[in-house]
Amino acid sequence: MIYLDNAATTMPDAACVRSAEQFLKDDFYNPSALYREGFAVHKALAEARKAVLSAVAAQGYELIFTGSGTEADNQVLFSAGRRGNVVITEGEHAAVYESAKELARRGEEVRFAKLREDGSVDAEDLLAKVDADTSLVSVIHVNNETGAVNEIARLSSAVKTKNKRTLFHSDGVQAFGKLDVRLPQTVDFYTISAHKIGGVRGAAALIRKKGAPLQPYLYGGGQENGLRSGTENTFAIIQFAEVVKKRMRERSALYAHAVEMNAKLRGMLDKKFFMPLSSETGSPFILSVSAVGLRGEVLQHMLNERGVLVGTGSACSSRNRYSRVILACGVGENVADGVLRLSFFGDESADDIAHAADVLNACAAELYERTR
Amino acid sequence: MIYLDNAATTMPDAACVRSAEQFLKDDFYNPSALYREGFAVHKALAEARKAVLSAVAAQGYELIFTGSGTEADNQVLFSAGRRGNVVITEGEHAAVYESAKELARRGEEVRFAKLREDGSVDAEDLLAKVDADTSLVSVIHVNNETGAVNEIARLSSAVKTKNKRTLFHSDGVQAFGKLDVRLPQTVDFYTISAHKIGGVRGAAALIRKKGAPLQPYLYGGGQENGLRSGTENTFAIIQFAEVVKKRMRERSALYAHAVEMNAKLRGMLDKKFFMPLSSETGSPFILSVSAVGLRGEVLQHMLNERGVLVGTGSACSSRNRYSRVILACGVGENVADGVLRLSFFGDESADDIAHAADVLNACAAELYERTR
Repeated sequence: MIYLDNAATTMPDAACVRSAEQFLKDDFYNPSALYREGFAVHKALAEARKAVLSAVAAQGYELIFTGSGTEADNQVLFSAGRRGNVVITEGEHAAVYESAKELARRGEEVRFAKLREDGSVDAEDLLAKVDADTSLVSVIHVNNETGAVNEIARLSSAVKTKNKRTLFHSDGVQAFGKLDVRLPQTVDFYTISAHKIGGVRGAAALIRKKGAPLQPYLYGGGQENGLRSGTENTFAIIQFAEVVKKRMRERSALYAHAVEMNAKLRGMLDKKFFMPLSSETGSPFILSVSAVGLRGEVLQHMLNERGVLVGTGSACSSRNRYSRVILACGVGENVADGVLRLSFFGDESADDIAHAADVLNACAAELYERTR
Repeated sequence: MIYLDNAATTMPDAACVRSAEQFLKDDFYNPSALYREGFAVHKALAEARKAVLSAVAAQGYELIFTGSGTEADNQVLFSAGRRGNVVITEGEHAAVYESAKELARRGEEVRFAKLREDGSVDAEDLLAKVDADTSLVSVIHVNNETGAVNEIARLSSAVKTKNKRTLFHSDGVQAFGKLDVRLPQTVDFYTISAHKIGGVRGAAALIRKKGAPLQPYLYGGGQENGLRSGTENTFAIIQFAEVVKKRMRERSALYAHAVEMNAKLRGMLDKKFFMPLSSETGSPFILSVSAVGLRGEVLQHMLNERGVLVGTGSACSSRNRYSRVILACGVGENVADGVLRLSFFGDESADDIAHAADVLNACAAELYERTR
């Protein structure tokens, strides 16, 4: 079995699960409990917070653990998007995009910046949409369908130049732990998630520039400094921190390896059938291609039979035949219909990648013969 | 070590963790993924949903998995509390109470029904507050600080008689898996959580009467039938379902045992120092007492030194010296200051309970001598 759907979810790192599982056993206590055992868990949480935060931001930032990247995105959109207008891109993950659409249903003005062919935002269009009334701009860091990298440092700086009161958010779920992320001071909010880099589900975080206005989204016991209520999921959070530490040690090597595997796969795919949608300057962890004229979903099933697991666009929007993000890249429906998303963890073997390429080519050829 | 803080969180059931941990390993796939391995996880989720739902409601209800009880409560409050007025009780958990306060800050009218001495709601006061404009009534099933049981069948029926369009919600986090819960048709929404009955954190659910209007609270990929977005936490959800199945088999026995242990502890506590706040008709899983005139927090520390772990009111509101719920029961600050919450899983041994009683009595006597 060759798993090339790491952008949908990754297999939890087993060693990190083992080092965190004490929080499902002897250290199961509620970190709000005032006895020594509860306080020890509270301290472990504080250390996890520091470890994760230091991997992404310098001083001047704080971290709020949430239950998912979706929740972190929702918190920012519904907190910061309450006045004036909100500018997002056509390439946002559903967690931002659907939240923005809900804001629009509630009467807020939401503006959608266009994408370029590779799925990155058209910077000129984005900036043209920012004005004196823009309360929030949200730009995905790495597009989860094409891997296109948005230059959030440059974009956030340009947004602030145009309106210094505009808050800038970026969903970094497909960037964090993969690219070398260091938040520039012009980014106010940044979303990260555990389960895309070997973490378990149930842990994610919103990174917040200190002082950037933020409302809670889950109200209750006042955990996370009043910004996110609910008993802390210590097992998932500690495992997340362990994963982050490990990933940070290995990140450069995994990145370099992903670059190599991505190029190898890209090079081996039969150009008769596969058209790359991902630009070569995008994240090496995502290679989106279209088997133009063929149905990606059928191809996916054929690959599945032969032990190669790939995605078709975002797993999260799998209910629609065509990916809205891919269409926003300006391609036709025949291209959008054939999309496969091949995504890496960074530790794939060259043999597996070569085998995957062979199977991809064989399945495409077979489907082409069958349907011509 | 004797753990009597099960209302704060319980130790995850190890056997159920083991039967779910395949979803952290070989079956880690995203349940939205369209290949066979993803669909198998999707099917396991559907079975878990059925198992949990059937433990609490008959036909006519559906279940939405959420990340926490807090999230389920927030979803109902912010969805159903959008017009007219909202009626809750003074005894609500912070997840409902703070959400209602946020609604009030946004300009909604929120009415708080009074409590009786044992922490249950004053039914007459509750009903008097319901009128033609009441959109939502929320009444906690088992008070998390005193264990008082609110008769949600009777209350919801009376509310519907007064205004048939009013939605009725109950936070059942301290009831589900402990009492014999079977939702009457007059309850529209019911919150349950895994980690109070041997589940891991990250899994909880909102039970919804089919057709009862409900907005999503987390927007995104459209999971949970569009009502709760975010990649499903399959490990936590499957473990939850396993726990529910086990708990349902053992519930009657655990309940009977909790009744016995509660009575034993209540009977053994030195009446010179301890005044019970919990009524004998409350949930047997919570025994709240006050060491009147002593500080509960100090007592808690002394007990901690001697291996007995107890709560002081709700762990979630531990930032305030006095519990708002306990004060709402009509007691003075000297009583509220001495509160200890002793809460059971249902499997405590009689010897442990006897030992805990001895330690409680000894610590109270010692603190009394020290402070007189």
